[in-house]
Amino acid sequence: MTANFDFYFDFSSPYGYLASTQIEALAAEFERQVNWHPILLGPMFKAMGSAPLSEIPLKGKYALHDFERSARLFGIPYAQPKEFPIGTVAAARAVLYLQRNTPEKAADFAKRIYRGYFAEGRDIGQPDTVLALAEEAGLDRSELANGMALEEVKDQLKKSVADAMALGIFGSPFIVVDGEPFWGFDRFDHIRKWLRTRG
Amino acid sequence: MTANFDFYFDFSSPYGYLASTQIEALAAEFERQVNWHPILLGPMFKAMGSAPLSEIPLKGKYALHDFERSARLFGIPYAQPKEFPIGTVAAARAVLYLQRNTPEKAADFAKRIYRGYFAEGRDIGQPDTVLALAEEAGLDRSELANGMALEEVKDQLKKSVADAMALGIFGSPFIVVDGEPFWGFDRFDHIRKWLRTRG
Repeated sequence: MTANFDFYFDFSSPYGYLASTQIEALAAEFERQVNWHPILLGPMFKAMGSAPLSEIPLKGKYALHDFERSARLFGIPYAQPKEFPIGTVAAARAVLYLQRNTPEKAADFAKRIYRGYFAEGRDIGQPDTVLALAEEAGLDRSELANGMALEEVKDQLKKSVADAMALGIFGSPFIVVDGEPFWGFDRFDHIRKWLRTRG
Repeated sequence: MTANFDFYFDFSSPYGYLASTQIEALAAEFERQVNWHPILLGPMFKAMGSAPLSEIPLKGKYALHDFERSARLFGIPYAQPKEFPIGTVAAARAVLYLQRNTPEKAADFAKRIYRGYFAEGRDIGQPDTVLALAEEAGLDRSELANGMALEEVKDQLKKSVADAMALGIFGSPFIVVDGEPFWGFDRFDHIRKWLRTRG
């Protein structure tokens, strides 16, 4: 089978960022490509009665340590953002708009947003930051600003989150491969083992 | 440095079981031994406002799938227990008693309890099951029964949990290596990388 990897992520998710730097290489090991699905963790946390990792007593302090250590151990640039976590509606809408209009640019821009936030201290919770990153990347800023405000783009994001939850997706990163669900950057090796040994 | 690995686990934790089958081999790669620390997740979940994985909406169904798949991908026998999760006070007290009186037998019996629960369908939430496993392992059943009821053993378990929480430990398995904390069976590779590359 050669179906694409479905890669679900929230732009405020550190492990989602780490995964975003390696998911294409992982998929390429199995001659696959990646479908990028920006989602929002907020509604998922609400359904689970959960909260962002860093805000949970006991677990929060460890999580902040593990974000940085995981990045270091895998050689990925990382600087814990000062504003964290943040709202990621604007960033997600920007990627969804590009996927509709210039799909060949959407994945690279998703990676650019993630890197801006988790490696360069850019506050991507602000729509203006997302637009500035777009401009720097050679995209049309005013077209994107208009695109992010389109009702169909807003509706698409709501639908994407609802569809993901209906599929049982509850976290970031979340990868679905040939119908098999994997949650977490730390499941990349499981994906490898699973694809090599199943059947 | 050659300090032991500190290995914290709750007997109701599937990933703790998976880790219990490999922690000694991992430690041995670095010429270390393992200190086994039975703890109780209940007080930690309470502090975090959390719950057993399998009981969390959305996440629970995935977790049950991931327990079995993780075991399969690593070649570890696993059968999801019918009674799950369970109370693990009796099992933890049994190991603590052995650590005081016949410490050379404690780690093997901890592994035996875990295997009984997660591979053989033995309901280790029942003190009688723990005692039956002890008898089968050639331990003195009545001595262990008396030992599990000792006030100092009961106090030791409370102290172990409180000490662990004071160290920032909140889950199972949790491994501390040279002061560095690692949460999860999926951090075994991080432990390797960390020990090989630090400093």
